[in-house]
Amino acid sequence: MRHRGVTVWFTGLSGAGKTTIAERVEGQLRLLDCKVETLDGDVVRTNLSKGLGFSREDRDTNIRRIGFVSHLLTRNGVIVLSAAISPFRNVRDELRSLIGDFVEVYVSTPLEVCAGRDVKGLYKRAMAGEIPQFTGVSDPYEPPLAPELTLDTLSQTADESAEEILRWLREHDYIDGAAHYETAPGRSRPVSVVW
Amino acid sequence: MRHRGVTVWFTGLSGAGKTTIAERVEGQLRLLDCKVETLDGDVVRTNLSKGLGFSREDRDTNIRRIGFVSHLLTRNGVIVLSAAISPFRNVRDELRSLIGDFVEVYVSTPLEVCAGRDVKGLYKRAMAGEIPQFTGVSDPYEPPLAPELTLDTLSQTADESAEEILRWLREHDYIDGAAHYETAPGRSRPVSVVW
Repeated sequence: MRHRGVTVWFTGLSGAGKTTIAERVEGQLRLLDCKVETLDGDVVRTNLSKGLGFSREDRDTNIRRIGFVSHLLTRNGVIVLSAAISPFRNVRDELRSLIGDFVEVYVSTPLEVCAGRDVKGLYKRAMAGEIPQFTGVSDPYEPPLAPELTLDTLSQTADESAEEILRWLREHDYIDGAAHYETAPGRSRPVSVVW
Repeated sequence: MRHRGVTVWFTGLSGAGKTTIAERVEGQLRLLDCKVETLDGDVVRTNLSKGLGFSREDRDTNIRRIGFVSHLLTRNGVIVLSAAISPFRNVRDELRSLIGDFVEVYVSTPLEVCAGRDVKGLYKRAMAGEIPQFTGVSDPYEPPLAPELTLDTLSQTADESAEEILRWLREHDYIDGAAHYETAPGRSRPVSVVW
């Protein structure tokens, strides 16, 4: 599968759906035999940023490290899916400049919805004051001003969000527009069609 | 240029010649249009490991981070040149298991020669007690027991060492044996020959 390196940079609150959507995108890109790596916030905190906390400085360091690795992979032709909260606009903009082939995807799920889902039970603890500096509760989140894509997880499923990203990548020639995957149950191999 | 992902893991004392040789290898691989990334110890300390010290634990963390990044790049087809001291055998062996396509290159320059060169002036300071935990002086270095290559920088030039590594990569089918580079002055493009 012909494709170019690019970093798809998800940003949004904890529980917004970043990792879920990234996993769907990764699965579909693997069906297309693309080189793809997902850098999930939790995985990165284990492998690159153990010991860092959640102060502004430590958050910026964590995000810059993900950006450094994304940069290395992207310039070697890999499609990188970064799924960390990355709350601060200036660091995201800095990484956009560094990486070049950079698609900012804002997963815009509102705070009350994320807190209502509360998949990891973190919002409950944050609102009880047990987690200091929790993004959206006791720490700021700065939404992107001009993201390439804004995903509304209230009106679409994770698969639909993933398809929106794949469409963007096709339209901007990061992946080959002639290849198409088939989502019907029972099919696990991509089907090539002419669009 | 057809090639496979692999991590070339240099190990040796400070001043042994790891970065110099890695740069020559990188230059030659670029002439062959290979995808290649050099992870120099100092660059990594800036971008991945700022804040880490030189305790055994911090050194291990630093090396594991380089290994994590090497792993991501290697499994996506990149030739990674890692040039950090990496003094401890067990962490190198751990990374060998993780990465799989792993070539350990021991740059065996003896301590007295490294200290005599003292390019960065670090040995002088270490021997004066100004740098605690300096590998080879006040901190251990564990040479590899079965490296794929041992380079003797006393009997060969950096270019000869680099050529030894390229030959190993060719013989083990990491780079295409049919491609050859030309080192004669005035030539900057690779020349293809049948061997």
